[in-house]
Amino acid sequence: PDPDSPAVQMGAVSVIGDRHNAADIEQLADATDVVTIDLEDVNVDALAQIEAAGMTVFPTPATLRNLTNKLKQKQILAAAGLPTAAFRECSGQADADFGQLGWPVVQKAAEGGYDGRGVVILRSPENIDQRLPVAGYIEAFQPNVTEIAVMVARDQRGQCETWSPVEMEFDPNGNLLTYLIAPARIPIKLAEQARELAVKTILAFNGAGVFGVEMFILPDGQLLINEIAPRTHNSGHYTIDACVTSQFLAQYRILSGQPIGDTTQQQPAVMFNLLGAEGYAGKTIVEGLDILLATPGVHPYLYGKQTCFPLRKMGHVTVVADSLEQAMEIADSAKTRIRIRGEKPISEES
Amino acid sequence: PDPDSPAVQMGAVSVIGDRHNAADIEQLADATDVVTIDLEDVNVDALAQIEAAGMTVFPTPATLRNLTNKLKQKQILAAAGLPTAAFRECSGQADADFGQLGWPVVQKAAEGGYDGRGVVILRSPENIDQRLPVAGYIEAFQPNVTEIAVMVARDQRGQCETWSPVEMEFDPNGNLLTYLIAPARIPIKLAEQARELAVKTILAFNGAGVFGVEMFILPDGQLLINEIAPRTHNSGHYTIDACVTSQFLAQYRILSGQPIGDTTQQQPAVMFNLLGAEGYAGKTIVEGLDILLATPGVHPYLYGKQTCFPLRKMGHVTVVADSLEQAMEIADSAKTRIRIRGEKPISEES
Repeated sequence: PDPDSPAVQMGAVSVIGDRHNAADIEQLADATDVVTIDLEDVNVDALAQIEAAGMTVFPTPATLRNLTNKLKQKQILAAAGLPTAAFRECSGQADADFGQLGWPVVQKAAEGGYDGRGVVILRSPENIDQRLPVAGYIEAFQPNVTEIAVMVARDQRGQCETWSPVEMEFDPNGNLLTYLIAPARIPIKLAEQARELAVKTILAFNGAGVFGVEMFILPDGQLLINEIAPRTHNSGHYTIDACVTSQFLAQYRILSGQPIGDTTQQQPAVMFNLLGAEGYAGKTIVEGLDILLATPGVHPYLYGKQTCFPLRKMGHVTVVADSLEQAMEIADSAKTRIRIRGEKPISEES
Repeated sequence: PDPDSPAVQMGAVSVIGDRHNAADIEQLADATDVVTIDLEDVNVDALAQIEAAGMTVFPTPATLRNLTNKLKQKQILAAAGLPTAAFRECSGQADADFGQLGWPVVQKAAEGGYDGRGVVILRSPENIDQRLPVAGYIEAFQPNVTEIAVMVARDQRGQCETWSPVEMEFDPNGNLLTYLIAPARIPIKLAEQARELAVKTILAFNGAGVFGVEMFILPDGQLLINEIAPRTHNSGHYTIDACVTSQFLAQYRILSGQPIGDTTQQQPAVMFNLLGAEGYAGKTIVEGLDILLATPGVHPYLYGKQTCFPLRKMGHVTVVADSLEQAMEIADSAKTRIRIRGEKPISEES
């Protein structure tokens, strides 16, 4: 939709349009040999129409239909016997029984969610006003878990490759990701189990493409599937700098009918997101980028967004080093040196 | 010039034109914020004109003028006291004294040469018919040398970064590169000297951009500068897969006014060129690509050329591994599995 998108800024031929509009999706199909998505909030029916007309679409609209609806996704996981937290369908209305799985409870919207949108955690019955007033499901909140993700690629012939499981470290004071740590600091055997589970999951959805499979590790070491993203994913950005084949190169190869290539990780890596600084809004100002670019192992990525507001995702930074400890030290320092903010201070009164 | 160039095939906005035509270069300048080259056989006067009109051009036309003319390049090296083989200006005509530096002798054309074009080795006075009938220079042939190259990047503020020296291994039966080996198998101290010499060389030309500095290591360990390419270079292709910052990313950062980033090599690598197979010509046929893509550490790059003839450069393959020995073993095997050829056999009669 954005005539100033990162791809356009880098000189790509582009079609400006609305990802929910069937005519715009048809126009895109007319301009290309193959279609994919990088956001699941898209008109899947329109993708099915262009596929019926002969266009190659990966992941297939059939797979997307089962994944972009979070309730359907959860039902398929359960039906396939794949481990996932207990859940109940939920209308989202005030009279729904939000307490039937106990408290706290996680509510997820069936449609339109991505990147943490469409998800709320209700701590107790008093928080019922914070519910999403839309259909979806509730699931039991999992306390004291380690969150990991496994990126999986599956090519057109059905061959699967996985990348090392990665670990998400969250700010204890909020739900913000502080670091993505690659590889996850978990036992080798558990990492292998996670990769196997991720492959089984993608097979259950008959997916071709690149997928992010988010999982919980329970305190007893059990793996639960949290959610699946049918696309290249924040959890896989580090693969650009740390792996032989990145998630994006894998995506390109899958779409063009080639094998995926080698997903081996070459160096330990940590990734952090660049969020808009608190207290400012307006035209994007980037401070400290030069210092980061001059620091060994540091890879800043800016998404080229023209305006910035507090906590807006403006980019990310990957740090590679000879050890995770070293990467994290460099990242700790890098974090303090870069700031992305809007041009104007937000006055507390306004 | 090619409406089917690799960049166009990947969806880049492009201007179709002749790199020697000033009007076409102006048209390119109108369409972009900054201009660079990836081939030195270009109209430098036209680049100087767009620079005079306010366009940013890197390397600057002044630098390009001194590097694209091989005779001028050699004279500047000598004037700066940088080590290079003894040479004499040479008209290229039959009455020129090709023997004044002894035999064999290397003749280089001043203008229009690149990638080994515009260079001949004359073994003895009997080979005089093989001379290039154009102005340039002759230089003493260096026997028993090791050929290395150092990629250098210099940003707009003058900050230099180098990549590890790489080593060229040639087929003893011809002048064809069998492997580019990164890093070069030379002592650390010599590698440091080579990097320092490469930086001094680029400073002598006041270059900003990415440069390939080719050198000889004489049997006694002395370094001689062979030639400088004012652009991303075959010797630096391996940096895409093996280094934190590739030569291409460095080029982009320099052009956009940023620091270069970390040029550290993450894994040993070898690279070989993919040449059109003997005995065939016509529409390009690629055999064995899938096997290569399914082999760990192997990165094939095809340039998308629609027609193929014997020895035409059709692409390259980079192999990364935990050791050079391992990378070379994988590469030895990969070489036997991929073949790029024209569609039709060339009959010996035709």
